Amino acid sequence: MATRKGNTLFLDTAPSVISYGAVGSKKESEGPLAAAFDRLWEDSTLGEETWEKAECRLQKDAINIALNKAGLSPGELQYIFAGDLLNQCIGSSFAARGQEVPFFGLYGACSTMGEGLALASMTLDGGFGEWAAVTASSHFCSAERQYRTPLEYGGQRTPTSQWTATAAGAAVLAREGPGPYITHVTVGKIVDKGVTDTNNMGAAMAPAAFDTIISHFNDTGRSPSSYDMIFTGDLGTLGSELLVELLRKSGIQVKNHADCGAMLFDIKNQDVHCGGSGCGCCASVLTGYILNNLKAKTWKNILFCPTGALHSPTSAFQGESIPGICHAIAISTQK
Amino acid sequence: MATRKGNTLFLDTAPSVISYGAVGSKKESEGPLAAAFDRLWEDSTLGEETWEKAECRLQKDAINIALNKAGLSPGELQYIFAGDLLNQCIGSSFAARGQEVPFFGLYGACSTMGEGLALASMTLDGGFGEWAAVTASSHFCSAERQYRTPLEYGGQRTPTSQWTATAAGAAVLAREGPGPYITHVTVGKIVDKGVTDTNNMGAAMAPAAFDTIISHFNDTGRSPSSYDMIFTGDLGTLGSELLVELLRKSGIQVKNHADCGAMLFDIKNQDVHCGGSGCGCCASVLTGYILNNLKAKTWKNILFCPTGALHSPTSAFQGESIPGICHAIAISTQK
Repeated sequence: MATRKGNTLFLDTAPSVISYGAVGSKKESEGPLAAAFDRLWEDSTLGEETWEKAECRLQKDAINIALNKAGLSPGELQYIFAGDLLNQCIGSSFAARGQEVPFFGLYGACSTMGEGLALASMTLDGGFGEWAAVTASSHFCSAERQYRTPLEYGGQRTPTSQWTATAAGAAVLAREGPGPYITHVTVGKIVDKGVTDTNNMGAAMAPAAFDTIISHFNDTGRSPSSYDMIFTGDLGTLGSELLVELLRKSGIQVKNHADCGAMLFDIKNQDVHCGGSGCGCCASVLTGYILNNLKAKTWKNILFCPTGALHSPTSAFQGESIPGICHAIAISTQK
Repeated sequence: MATRKGNTLFLDTAPSVISYGAVGSKKESEGPLAAAFDRLWEDSTLGEETWEKAECRLQKDAINIALNKAGLSPGELQYIFAGDLLNQCIGSSFAARGQEVPFFGLYGACSTMGEGLALASMTLDGGFGEWAAVTASSHFCSAERQYRTPLEYGGQRTPTSQWTATAAGAAVLAREGPGPYITHVTVGKIVDKGVTDTNNMGAAMAPAAFDTIISHFNDTGRSPSSYDMIFTGDLGTLGSELLVELLRKSGIQVKNHADCGAMLFDIKNQDVHCGGSGCGCCASVLTGYILNNLKAKTWKNILFCPTGALHSPTSAFQGESIPGICHAIAISTQK
């Protein structure tokens, strides 16, 4: 049985990530991680009539690619854990429609891939099944329309803003498998330091990342050097600086941190300001670049810490600050 | 360790519902289940400036009442599983803000209380903690504004429509306790039979309830007579008729079915058409009327089957049909 210390679970069986799929669109194909994607669509409609249907297609693609790699049919999956940024999470429920798989819909904003990996690995480690899929998606155009202004409006973006990835990632987890293994899960609390600028989500989420990473180190007795890399997602460049500074002030020097939002795009040349964001950003960076490098044994141990901003346009209009959350998932090539 | 058969989990430890709280507003106070609520606010603002903040307050109240009854402080909780109908689930994340408890945000529409009970009981049964809270809320005014038309518009409601409950329910689960016990969980799949009428959600969700209830009976070898009562939520009166008819056509006679949506309000005299709906409807009926009757041993075994319609205004405008889901939770006074 799993051991729990603080907010961290030490998973007894350490479920295996047996396959994964990353799907993106044009902007992702022009970024530095393009080669790590399984599929890159030439345009962001994906041949669909609406942006929302295109986002749904991204998620379907990612799941199908991961299932194909695992040699599994959808019917063999025992659970899907899925989420996205769309109101009522329609990207996920419409993607899972017709798959005949027990379904858990999640809302964790950009932390969703971490929330899903946490719950799926707990589900398998707890003995409730053998196979589970986790997926998350976002789409630049559906997010702009919903959260900001319609694309046609041509609104100016502030220097601290980020660019929602048009991407999805999916991972298939197995209770038994050859690895990489999910060994530890630190479940995040909601942290809100009063930031109200919805164009500076990195600043809103950095304290949540700090809180969860500190909990993880305290609970496990680990330190940054226990990991080859510590990935957050998606703090962007500014949020990343804030996180590193917060850790430094607590006496923790981190030299092996990278942020999925700062990695997905070429910050200097792709006009993305502080980097990528959206549930699909860290989901696709994990299920492409990061897991590829674990598979190739470039790294042996990584800590994946997706962050989410749990606000809405309505809460922002009503003057509320932005609650952040971050879950930490330790993934290792060895049990 | 739990046993799994089909889509049903037989929980080894059978986590205990050790306390619960139900909160409502004026309309709920005028309904037939008023006496089962812990707190009934006189008006639906709850003294807050906005409907969304009022909904958040409902959820905070429900959690605090349940925690007080259990003699627990928020800090002793190890997990909160929460969801609501608001875009980006702000009712839940703002209610959990400041509680310093590891948080899982869920989106299951009106099935959320079932989704939360499933995941929380799996979490405790799997050995990942001792205490977890589950909560869900809805608010008539925030839902009308978001899903339909602003209240000021005074739109006519169709005969098949339902009335969103201004209510929240919360339950505290313990790995060990005196019961009632969560003995079985049947996790639902997404079922979509092509219904596109967003004013007839009962019809859209009845096939999902049918699918999960049939799975539950097949997986467990149980039948309607294994339970004192089978509760769905919230099919309303029309959806309930459809469910009973679907079951009858499959050779299953159900005489002990009731629907939380049809129970919360006085259908004839409260102008609610087909009954109540919203995440808070079945959540508050469970954490008031149903659990009170289990505690009083009026019933020994019940099956709680909340249903959700996983669509959005955007998907409806785009001509999509309504995907439904239902999770079944068996609750018993004996392990």
